[in-house]
Amino acid sequence: MLDLQISVLQEAYASGTTTPEQVVAEVYRRIEACSDQAVWISLIPPEDAAAAAQALSKDGDQREEMPLFGVPFAIKDNIDCAELPTTAGCPSYAYTPGDDATAVARLRAAGAILIGKTNLDQFATGLVGTRSPYGSPHSPFSEEYISGGSSSGSAVAVARGLVSFALGTDTAGSGRVPASFNNIVGYKPTRGIGSTKGVVPACRTLDCVSVFAATCGDAAVVKKVIEGFDAGDPYSRVLDVRPLHGAEFSFGVLDEGSRNFMADEGAEALYDGAIKALKRLGGVPVEFDYTPFRKAAELLYAGPWVAERYAAIGRHIDGKNENDEPRSDLAGDIDPVVAGIVRGGLSSSAVDAFLGQYLLADLRRTIDQTWNQVDVLLLPTTPTTYRKDEIAADPVSLNANLGLYTNFVNLTDCAAVAVPVGFRNGLPAGATLVGPAFTDEGLLSLGDKLHRSASHEPRVGATDVPLSPSLAGGSQGIELAVVGAHLVGQPLNWQLTSRGAKLKEATHTTGNYNLFALANTKPAKPGLARSVRGGVAIEVEVWLLSDEAFGSFTAEVPAPLAIGNVELADGRWVKGFVCEPWALVDADDISKFGGWRAYLADSQ
Amino acid sequence: MLDLQISVLQEAYASGTTTPEQVVAEVYRRIEACSDQAVWISLIPPEDAAAAAQALSKDGDQREEMPLFGVPFAIKDNIDCAELPTTAGCPSYAYTPGDDATAVARLRAAGAILIGKTNLDQFATGLVGTRSPYGSPHSPFSEEYISGGSSSGSAVAVARGLVSFALGTDTAGSGRVPASFNNIVGYKPTRGIGSTKGVVPACRTLDCVSVFAATCGDAAVVKKVIEGFDAGDPYSRVLDVRPLHGAEFSFGVLDEGSRNFMADEGAEALYDGAIKALKRLGGVPVEFDYTPFRKAAELLYAGPWVAERYAAIGRHIDGKNENDEPRSDLAGDIDPVVAGIVRGGLSSSAVDAFLGQYLLADLRRTIDQTWNQVDVLLLPTTPTTYRKDEIAADPVSLNANLGLYTNFVNLTDCAAVAVPVGFRNGLPAGATLVGPAFTDEGLLSLGDKLHRSASHEPRVGATDVPLSPSLAGGSQGIELAVVGAHLVGQPLNWQLTSRGAKLKEATHTTGNYNLFALANTKPAKPGLARSVRGGVAIEVEVWLLSDEAFGSFTAEVPAPLAIGNVELADGRWVKGFVCEPWALVDADDISKFGGWRAYLADSQ
Repeated sequence: MLDLQISVLQEAYASGTTTPEQVVAEVYRRIEACSDQAVWISLIPPEDAAAAAQALSKDGDQREEMPLFGVPFAIKDNIDCAELPTTAGCPSYAYTPGDDATAVARLRAAGAILIGKTNLDQFATGLVGTRSPYGSPHSPFSEEYISGGSSSGSAVAVARGLVSFALGTDTAGSGRVPASFNNIVGYKPTRGIGSTKGVVPACRTLDCVSVFAATCGDAAVVKKVIEGFDAGDPYSRVLDVRPLHGAEFSFGVLDEGSRNFMADEGAEALYDGAIKALKRLGGVPVEFDYTPFRKAAELLYAGPWVAERYAAIGRHIDGKNENDEPRSDLAGDIDPVVAGIVRGGLSSSAVDAFLGQYLLADLRRTIDQTWNQVDVLLLPTTPTTYRKDEIAADPVSLNANLGLYTNFVNLTDCAAVAVPVGFRNGLPAGATLVGPAFTDEGLLSLGDKLHRSASHEPRVGATDVPLSPSLAGGSQGIELAVVGAHLVGQPLNWQLTSRGAKLKEATHTTGNYNLFALANTKPAKPGLARSVRGGVAIEVEVWLLSDEAFGSFTAEVPAPLAIGNVELADGRWVKGFVCEPWALVDADDISKFGGWRAYLADSQ
Repeated sequence: MLDLQISVLQEAYASGTTTPEQVVAEVYRRIEACSDQAVWISLIPPEDAAAAAQALSKDGDQREEMPLFGVPFAIKDNIDCAELPTTAGCPSYAYTPGDDATAVARLRAAGAILIGKTNLDQFATGLVGTRSPYGSPHSPFSEEYISGGSSSGSAVAVARGLVSFALGTDTAGSGRVPASFNNIVGYKPTRGIGSTKGVVPACRTLDCVSVFAATCGDAAVVKKVIEGFDAGDPYSRVLDVRPLHGAEFSFGVLDEGSRNFMADEGAEALYDGAIKALKRLGGVPVEFDYTPFRKAAELLYAGPWVAERYAAIGRHIDGKNENDEPRSDLAGDIDPVVAGIVRGGLSSSAVDAFLGQYLLADLRRTIDQTWNQVDVLLLPTTPTTYRKDEIAADPVSLNANLGLYTNFVNLTDCAAVAVPVGFRNGLPAGATLVGPAFTDEGLLSLGDKLHRSASHEPRVGATDVPLSPSLAGGSQGIELAVVGAHLVGQPLNWQLTSRGAKLKEATHTTGNYNLFALANTKPAKPGLARSVRGGVAIEVEVWLLSDEAFGSFTAEVPAPLAIGNVELADGRWVKGFVCEPWALVDADDISKFGGWRAYLADSQ
């Protein structure tokens, strides 16, 4: 069976064992054969996708510059592409945009081939996948169970191996809940590092375009393509990279009073398994109180943010046109549950809106205290899952249960990666890693390890395809090699830790450096110098810093020290302390000690 | 007459010509003698202020660690101090807080002596100074004219030489308008770099504590003391410093269609004079369209932000207690104009609130285009001024006129400094420099020059005291000396300009450096090395960068280059390019050319 994982496809194209045309043909064969006919709302005509594939093949030289060359993908039908209508799950709302959303345009420019647009809970309002006039996709593991939503079709399309990856959107958890129910990865970026231009809003101040993929490595490849400032999106932010954790890390786990799995003991056992898996990976669990996170989560539907949904599509739901006049063509296709939720946005005043924002700002200060204690949170993606008939009988409160551990994430400006952690009763469950804004790279890297450690012989979604090998992890910020007074336990180490820097590794330089004890430095400092011939390996520590932390740190480094580049024992080059030549003239060569600590120990 | 300017007081204390006790005694004599009895709402008892002064004198050794040692100051009466009630200009609202606001606590810890609490437009709602049951201060230049507001008493107290500086608050322009009408400096910091903990809110998401002072130099001293992250204020931000402009700078001026001085030709002439003054200082004026700024300004009172005022004090205005029950003790002391404005906040829905926020986000993207064209805006602080009887006859729309050029600043996340630029008809007028967030240092530095250049023999407020000499300007970010491929016109210069770096100066190192042409660099690069004996002065350019820009720039510097510290011809040390020793061994010494450009010219 043709394996559509991005890294596998890249190898297949490089070795010539397949072509984009063959991949596209296979994708449409699978779509045709798929038993779940509620996955798609519209498809790119096969001949158009074939033409796109052919165009790529013709210009095969571009392959190395196209990180997604010939990779088939789907988008949730609240995201624009030029050729197909955007329905947002509501036929009467449909429009044909004429332009790609920024994210779609970036993916196509990187060589990805759009296959079609997927089903969703109407107006992205829901976590269940059953609120759509286009039918409701079901769990690929059981027809009785929901697919999760709102990005239902996107998750199922990846889980069934119909496409390599799919875009969703995520305001409350729509990019994570269906990942959990479909045994795939759901990556919810930091707000604003991708563009939402060309996306039907749910809550404009919170919405993110999200990524469903087989592995965190595949999601990371897509991330690199879709991220970056977009002046056309007023909520776009300039990209930053902050370290999530160092070699040692701590992770927050729900304390006893915060645990709520709605009596799903299998789900709770899988969460405990994920905790064990992270411990095997070297993490130290720290119990924390979920209360302030839960309070923030509750604001999303019980607070004024519902008014954003009304601002986006309330007029349509109420059967009015842009001038607030009644429309004649409306519209038996509004989901009554969605309409009820969205109309709730009318009940809040502007005073309520600001009071809600103040309460959230206060809660975020409380939550900051948790971030002072742990590097990352490990949460169940959902407490449990439900059958379709259960949702039909109680559509609002069971839906709310599913968002218990996801709703706070965008409100509190966090990033998240949901990964599969195993099965109970034949149904998959996920766990989610949550970190502060701009820790996305670290989350994907740790998420990949958790995915492989927590699951037994993990497969892609509902297919028999084993996970492709992990791709090299992205950077967690700027790596800085320190050699003297900034080492752990030395007097200037606080200049790193107070800036949120994380210790990545203790290692050595290559064997061609010399270390000198500098005269007249206080506290005493060494100078590291790459030698022209010979030299030794010198003990260093590599720390991770954000751009800003690295900048303010470097600004404080006094002469004769400077921040240059240092070659490590494994051949890697990282930023690091070097020394101006003039200060070495009369300095003692202490290279024989192999490091500053050994020299200090000897001189005492 | 005792000169209370901070820099003058510091010298007087240092030389022993006065003591804090003498200064405090003189301050109370002046307050007693002041003809305007509406300046103060409450005073620290003179004996308590004297005791504070005495305590400082006793511990005189601390003087050098206290940047405001023995400096008398006032605070607007919507800011807490432990001893006096906070009224916010409304007797029935008064409470005695028991704690200092964060800003007040920081000032006292720095040696400043609190004298009392000043009058204001009730609940800081107004730009006129007439909306207070405690009387309305008047212009110190004419009893007929308003003082401006809402920080009316704080501005008059500084203008009359009663205190060295005073705190105000600024949401719409309350820290700038009265500065203009009182011939003093009004500094409105970037939102969140000072704390608003202990301040009665007007619009919590926008409020700033502001500074009234005789000079920008004095305001800069106060700024250093009050700024810094406060975990107790949910809207506090981590301090950043971004460069406003380099040696050459452009400034935005109102285009013909944007000019509106309400027929005050004298005020327009003073604005034109300020433009000329900035041109004399080397600035290049660029006309811009004020329309998007005006639209943002209108949102403050015509949009949903009024609801923040209702959220803060609406219940009190409506005569209710915290449980929304009617209060028995209320309250004939609510200003009817203020009440009318605040109640307007009830008319917006949460949907309106979010729609207003979306509109503002869109306008900010439009405004970003102006920031791509100019370094700083020069605006009239107000279009004109008014007599008290004019305000009484038309209290709302004339007040709105005063905010035409101030209301947008907090909404669009800018910083501003209002400085005096001269007199017409015996009344002062001001101009305001506006820059993007975190350009405060640059604004104060340029504002000081504008103040001295635009005004003829400037005096402090309404006193005869000439301005003290300018204090050394603060940093505009990190200074970086570049020596080769990053110089203007060289191939890597874009790595600076694309990060918002600004060229500060073209200069030389001290005479003890050598320059080497490095082998195998592309583009060709030199290496700068401080010499042990001798050497020459090497041509460099000094660029200004924010922490983040400096960090990401430094991260890209390849070996053998590094960022260390370089001594300039004037003896200053700045960050700068240095070189690892190994690369100099076989490099050509090109010091005789005195710089990279001369070497390149010769080698062609």
